[in-house]
Amino acid sequence: MRLKKISGAVVRRLPIYLRVLDELARDGAKELVSSQELGERAGVSPALVRKDLAWFGEFGKQGVGYDVEHLRTELRRILHLDRDVPVALVGVGSLGAALVRYFRRRYVADPGFHLNIVVLFDADPAKQGETIEGVPVEPPERIPERVKELGIRMAIVTVPAEAAQSVVDTLVASGVRLLFNFAPVKLAVPKDVHIVHADLSLELQRLAYYLED
Amino acid sequence: MRLKKISGAVVRRLPIYLRVLDELARDGAKELVSSQELGERAGVSPALVRKDLAWFGEFGKQGVGYDVEHLRTELRRILHLDRDVPVALVGVGSLGAALVRYFRRRYVADPGFHLNIVVLFDADPAKQGETIEGVPVEPPERIPERVKELGIRMAIVTVPAEAAQSVVDTLVASGVRLLFNFAPVKLAVPKDVHIVHADLSLELQRLAYYLED
Repeated sequence: MRLKKISGAVVRRLPIYLRVLDELARDGAKELVSSQELGERAGVSPALVRKDLAWFGEFGKQGVGYDVEHLRTELRRILHLDRDVPVALVGVGSLGAALVRYFRRRYVADPGFHLNIVVLFDADPAKQGETIEGVPVEPPERIPERVKELGIRMAIVTVPAEAAQSVVDTLVASGVRLLFNFAPVKLAVPKDVHIVHADLSLELQRLAYYLED
Repeated sequence: MRLKKISGAVVRRLPIYLRVLDELARDGAKELVSSQELGERAGVSPALVRKDLAWFGEFGKQGVGYDVEHLRTELRRILHLDRDVPVALVGVGSLGAALVRYFRRRYVADPGFHLNIVVLFDADPAKQGETIEGVPVEPPERIPERVKELGIRMAIVTVPAEAAQSVVDTLVASGVRLLFNFAPVKLAVPKDVHIVHADLSLELQRLAYYLED
């Protein structure tokens, strides 16, 4: 159980800090990093870096900085990325299949990624029995059984908008608590379920702001 | 030319407000919306709604709220979504092709979307000459010519990491100023070019924070 309620904005920056630390560790150049440099590479102010990390403990030393390896280990632990996390994906259409490839390749290439798509579901009988990047496609009727069997708490939803709520209801009833939704629709979930909407259209729309008149 | 420098965080929320207003207009129930309701639907505080919108003018009336249609029209104008915006996509792999389908279908289904993928580029000769959702795939050598011809200022990049910088350099040299990058790599661009990194891995990683111990 978490003792403190950390804001979503802070949580959103943690994987960015972790990525910067991964880069620093890969370069192998330095054992210590200042909040100045961590902030610059993460695109935030040094003060915000210090404030964000202070929520989780006393990681830095004034005038010295953060120990790269120690902070990396701690962030992995905080983000639960210190062990494999099994993930389900529902809806193996064009976008779903592309995401399976994207995330599976990332998982294979990066031993620190730890998010592993282990099962796919699709309502189309023609797809059932197939595999994508070695992961089998199964019928949605098997969601409750397979989610429990595989200990899945996290799922990616790439079904059409009109199917999304019913798929999410089934996932949640089966024990899934974390959802990454690509269906362009608002979804109702219980209070203890976290849902991230990957809204690619919103991202493209905000870019248009910068078009010159 | 923009007179005021608006922060990226404000710009990021504008398409969300627009979407809420689109929903309100579609429901057709009300002509006015309070900052309270707009905030609730957009997931931000009413004070932040008022502060964000005040950057662009005096849209609301105290105690009355915002005129849905007027604010919608103004936000479309501010976001340059009051007319069609031609977009190029480079890299028609699995993810690229999925995104073409995703955005083209959105464009066809939603007359207010206005972001229209009009040309695709891929280095694979086997793909050149094909079309996806009616959009032709052309060789990357044609980027400069076609970008100028079609008046393209916005591009989506879905090439492999190692090809991304060179593709982006070509796009920028041809006149593209807005980039939506899916390649998992940092890219160098001139100061007057805006780049959004669609980092799906970061999104999935931050969800893992909420896994229970």
